[in-house]
Amino acid sequence: MTSFPAALSAAADRVEARLQAEIATLPPSVVRDAMAYAARGGKKLRGFLVLESARLHGIAPEQAVAAAAAIEAIHAYSLVHDDLPAMDDDDLRRGQPTVHVKWDEATAILTGDALQTLAFGLLARPDAAPTDAGRLTLLATLAHASGGAGMVLGQALDIAAETAATPLDLDAITALQAGKTGALIEWSACAGARMAGADPAALIAYAQALGLAFQIADDLLDIEGDIALAGKRLQKDEKAGKATFVSLLGIDGAKARARDLVAQAQDALAPYSADADILRQAAQFVIARKG
Amino acid sequence: MTSFPAALSAAADRVEARLQAEIATLPPSVVRDAMAYAARGGKKLRGFLVLESARLHGIAPEQAVAAAAAIEAIHAYSLVHDDLPAMDDDDLRRGQPTVHVKWDEATAILTGDALQTLAFGLLARPDAAPTDAGRLTLLATLAHASGGAGMVLGQALDIAAETAATPLDLDAITALQAGKTGALIEWSACAGARMAGADPAALIAYAQALGLAFQIADDLLDIEGDIALAGKRLQKDEKAGKATFVSLLGIDGAKARARDLVAQAQDALAPYSADADILRQAAQFVIARKG
Repeated sequence: MTSFPAALSAAADRVEARLQAEIATLPPSVVRDAMAYAARGGKKLRGFLVLESARLHGIAPEQAVAAAAAIEAIHAYSLVHDDLPAMDDDDLRRGQPTVHVKWDEATAILTGDALQTLAFGLLARPDAAPTDAGRLTLLATLAHASGGAGMVLGQALDIAAETAATPLDLDAITALQAGKTGALIEWSACAGARMAGADPAALIAYAQALGLAFQIADDLLDIEGDIALAGKRLQKDEKAGKATFVSLLGIDGAKARARDLVAQAQDALAPYSADADILRQAAQFVIARKG
Repeated sequence: MTSFPAALSAAADRVEARLQAEIATLPPSVVRDAMAYAARGGKKLRGFLVLESARLHGIAPEQAVAAAAAIEAIHAYSLVHDDLPAMDDDDLRRGQPTVHVKWDEATAILTGDALQTLAFGLLARPDAAPTDAGRLTLLATLAHASGGAGMVLGQALDIAAETAATPLDLDAITALQAGKTGALIEWSACAGARMAGADPAALIAYAQALGLAFQIADDLLDIEGDIALAGKRLQKDEKAGKATFVSLLGIDGAKARARDLVAQAQDALAPYSADADILRQAAQFVIARKG
């Protein structure tokens, strides 16, 4: 059996190639250059989850890679806009200047916009899912997961928290995270079931635990991480006095909670037996990663 | 036969209601409020074109209204982002404070993002087109028309023009307009043919002439318009020293060119005979409008 790191790396290469190929179909412009730049690198964990959940449902990567590229385009757009001065005001991303630093704010706004458009365009491609019905289900669920009921809602809650009189409590942080990070991870992990018209319940349970573990790990990296590995300004949340899982649970409490969630994610995959071992390893990986 | 103003007004009411109903399905948030605010008002000319081209192909408004709402959501998102300080820096839109003035820049960025997401989500709804294949064709063509090969490309060219050493010539202005305004108008006018699986060639020819006439009329309004009617800061392009159709052709030349384009748009509808009279009136309207 393939190991998780090998599967992740193969998926990352495949998804990045598909995404860059789609960007390359656009007419030359500064926005196209900035899109290619913003889509480069990263772990491509979300794209991997799409391909792996597709495989679990008997769908080959060639029949699902455009959906995997689509979720990475959504993720890339959200990072470009998140990094803007009016949002998180970050100048480094994956160790490189952010788009508005390398170009300018207007280019960064348009680049994020066009990456989102590209994501939805990818879902109409024949290699997004084996059937028209599958493509339309992916479309409807991605719009729900990434818009004003999902990722953007989480970002809006995050911004509201910054000016709130009192720090968020654990329930509020969990709700915020469910939108901001969780919704895209859940969509990715469920994509294969949705392409196949199968029940996504087990993958939803897996993804919800995984998404929360992922965010806790991110908060821990933010405190403990090494700037060279994580490639972004660290301890930012701490400096901003923002409530995080770590500030609410403590470092040891947050680590224990992340371990529980990983076990929960792995248990949720019981219906898939040994076929889901790579997804089980993926859950372990999110709390062991260093960047 | 219905007259164009009656058809436009009926379409505007129907499309706005569908769009607001979709926004109302989102969980409460400042972004949802700002989306509802940004989607309010306007002529809804693009939504009208979708419903009217659907009618021409035997498709009832109830089977197409989500597609009409989708294009208006795209248009609204583009205005919210265009108005941002890093872009056109406008504080008034349709006579009201723009989203970043009424709320703040972060909210405006997220509101535009979520309106775009909503647009694509609407195309997955049963009332976007009578068939799955129709919905997917609308999705693929809207992604092309609104992204880095269409509207966003036009905006990028527009920004580049502002810092260019020499003003744009007529060909460059025409290419810029084809992306910035033309692509969405073309998508709207062709939507009915695409829903029905019919050849959109006649509607493409109509829309290309209409879109150009629309932009020339906009440039003329910018020079001659009345601030109370147009509801936005006027003579902005002139102040910025930007090349426009009016600066290149003169007021009389621009008016003559717009009249020729309207005739061209009307002629392109020959295959539809009298059934397309409302679209013929629409072409006349775009150069006669006062705001």
